[in-house]
Amino acid sequence: MAYKRKRKGGVSVISLITDFGQNDNFVGVIKGVILSINPNAKIVDICHEVKPHDILTGAFLLKSSFKYFPKGSLHLVVVDPGVGSERKNLLVKTKDYFFIAPDNGVLSPALKDQASLKIIEITNKNYFLKPTSDTFHGRDIFAPTAAYLSKGEDFGKFGKRIKSIKELSLPQVKITSKGLIGEIIYIDRFGNLVSNIDKEMLDNFIKNKRFRIHIKNKTIDNLSHSYAEGTYLKLLALIDSFNYLEIALNRGSACNYLKAKKGTEVMLAVT
Amino acid sequence: MAYKRKRKGGVSVISLITDFGQNDNFVGVIKGVILSINPNAKIVDICHEVKPHDILTGAFLLKSSFKYFPKGSLHLVVVDPGVGSERKNLLVKTKDYFFIAPDNGVLSPALKDQASLKIIEITNKNYFLKPTSDTFHGRDIFAPTAAYLSKGEDFGKFGKRIKSIKELSLPQVKITSKGLIGEIIYIDRFGNLVSNIDKEMLDNFIKNKRFRIHIKNKTIDNLSHSYAEGTYLKLLALIDSFNYLEIALNRGSACNYLKAKKGTEVMLAVT
Amino acid sequence: MAYKRKRKGGVSVISLITDFGQNDNFVGVIKGVILSINPNAKIVDICHEVKPHDILTGAFLLKSSFKYFPKGSLHLVVVDPGVGSERKNLLVKTKDYFFIAPDNGVLSPALKDQASLKIIEITNKNYFLKPTSDTFHGRDIFAPTAAYLSKGEDFGKFGKRIKSIKELSLPQVKITSKGLIGEIIYIDRFGNLVSNIDKEMLDNFIKNKRFRIHIKNKTIDNLSHSYAEGTYLKLLALIDSFNYLEIALNRGSACNYLKAKKGTEVMLAVT
Repeated sequence: MAYKRKRKGGVSVISLITDFGQNDNFVGVIKGVILSINPNAKIVDICHEVKPHDILTGAFLLKSSFKYFPKGSLHLVVVDPGVGSERKNLLVKTKDYFFIAPDNGVLSPALKDQASLKIIEITNKNYFLKPTSDTFHGRDIFAPTAAYLSKGEDFGKFGKRIKSIKELSLPQVKITSKGLIGEIIYIDRFGNLVSNIDKEMLDNFIKNKRFRIHIKNKTIDNLSHSYAEGTYLKLLALIDSFNYLEIALNRGSACNYLKAKKGTEVMLAVT
Repeated sequence: MAYKRKRKGGVSVISLITDFGQNDNFVGVIKGVILSINPNAKIVDICHEVKPHDILTGAFLLKSSFKYFPKGSLHLVVVDPGVGSERKNLLVKTKDYFFIAPDNGVLSPALKDQASLKIIEITNKNYFLKPTSDTFHGRDIFAPTAAYLSKGEDFGKFGKRIKSIKELSLPQVKITSKGLIGEIIYIDRFGNLVSNIDKEMLDNFIKNKRFRIHIKNKTIDNLSHSYAEGTYLKLLALIDSFNYLEIALNRGSACNYLKAKKGTEVMLAVT
Repeated sequence: MAYKRKRKGGVSVISLITDFGQNDNFVGVIKGVILSINPNAKIVDICHEVKPHDILTGAFLLKSSFKYFPKGSLHLVVVDPGVGSERKNLLVKTKDYFFIAPDNGVLSPALKDQASLKIIEITNKNYFLKPTSDTFHGRDIFAPTAAYLSKGEDFGKFGKRIKSIKELSLPQVKITSKGLIGEIIYIDRFGNLVSNIDKEMLDNFIKNKRFRIHIKNKTIDNLSHSYAEGTYLKLLALIDSFNYLEIALNRGSACNYLKAKKGTEVMLAVT
């Protein structure tokens, strides 16, 4: 009810995740197009420094971010190595949010737990910028679609309903006789190493028993609550603010210290 | 008519292109100054990562971007190696847009095709921040001028009318017996190589004949429609979304692959 | 009076200074949280590229920036190596501004000259995001506190009044028999070297006498008014737009030319 009321005034916020970087004019031009159509659009950058064509990182950032935005927000993700090929352009509606992205898997981790998905393949050229290039759908298709939707245009008008989207195959945690085997899937600016083992998996596995975490040739045998815990440059493990098991170094970079990278194995064993 | 109505409410959007980068507080302070004068100003970043003092890149980004913004927008460009010297400060009005920049050529490519230019040398100190430094006109002169204009202050009040602005000498395409000889003038984050040969020149030159594009020691003999066309890591040529002939690599960096840089020659020959 | 009126409508602008960089989603998520609570909040980035945990640079940027924002603005600073430890979270009110930051000294240079400080330790969990992490107070404590304050919630409700905050020990200028001895405390993107000698110190010391500035093995014997003064690549000294003695190179990088860094000595001698 409250949600429907919000829709009358259009989308509350348009968030942006892209691999466009900030050295070119791509992001600025997308904003110009949105504001040309809806002068009242409120646009918020989440991240533009996704490595070119790195769909997995775009998906991880979206999944970690979208719930912190106002209900009714539209999340626009442009990590799109296949632009101009036959991959579809998607507009998705969940109970609380809208999403626009190419159909390359980048939405799938965020949408996994969402109920009552409605998926549209964006095909209505009436809303496209003219001429419509094959090389910059972010500007010519996604931005104007987002802008018209944010102005209150009806969701159903942008294309035809479809039933499913492409799934991204994420690195899975393995259960072995030795323990849980996960891996580093994201490294932040501080050099904190984010694994794909989340709080729920960890709790279910250790069940209040003693445990050890192995990464590279190091062992950590407890969880810290903050990065500042323990002594200077001590290696720490903690459940981070997005609910993942994270390896960190007190006031330093765990990434540099361990020479770790994406894919580095993290093992959790009960002792 | 619609335009005049818009002006009553002031400028719709203030866009920013600078060489200030994002490691300092220069851009944030400019925004603070604008919002102190006009709390309702809507400010959009186009790019702040122009290489220090690189007027040519600033000019290219402005020319490629300004038309995507709402009519009535004001484009503020601060690439200003001569700040504090005798170069003028410009405020320019075209049919649809306003521009503020130092008179060093950075506006000239964007203004080339614009009709009914009105040019003002900004001299009215009533609108300047006090004290007014000789080292940061972006904050002390451009930002407050933009803010007062955006609030609806009359265009003519900011200084005296002048007749011309400094022209930038851009790399020109040469017509030779061998063919069109252009060069790379811009390289984006994906390593795509943008040449100074635009769609119109290319169409006029090849007139539906077969052609070859030569760059470094490579040859390309057709135009693609998208970056994803052809096989992985194939070298492509296409008309990009800003209408320039661009050399790209399917899912890779043409720049790295060809070891190309700004100024690298691109030749177009009819066969 | 004008100020009180502004407060009825809440805080005018929320500015952000962090060491979060722009490669992750930290800043975007903070903005999402703020807009979820106050959809009308106006958020302006000052800088997110403070080096991780570099409190001194965060403090310098805040001190140089905050006065350029509209009265009634709230400045949120998240450079927070001690997050989750026993350091306090601060909300501070001065005559014209609000500040939110961890109590690690980052506010102290900005607040030094401010009259009628009111300081609160943020303790009211009613305003925190739930669950509240120990690793991301920016998102879970600072952002919602800022948002509720910006909506007009009463300053006194966020915690208990305290009397003092942690002071940062900044590099001090020394007066010796040879002259004033300062040092480089900040280097901007252009390679300009900002010293801790400000205009007032310099004026008081030289009192219209002739002087020499020594840095590395170079000597400068006058002050310029702009970066463009003198010949190409000439070494210059000037009072910069934030009132500090700055060493610069006409159209080049003084930092690279002198191989200077933070801490490099700058001596000012009367001759």
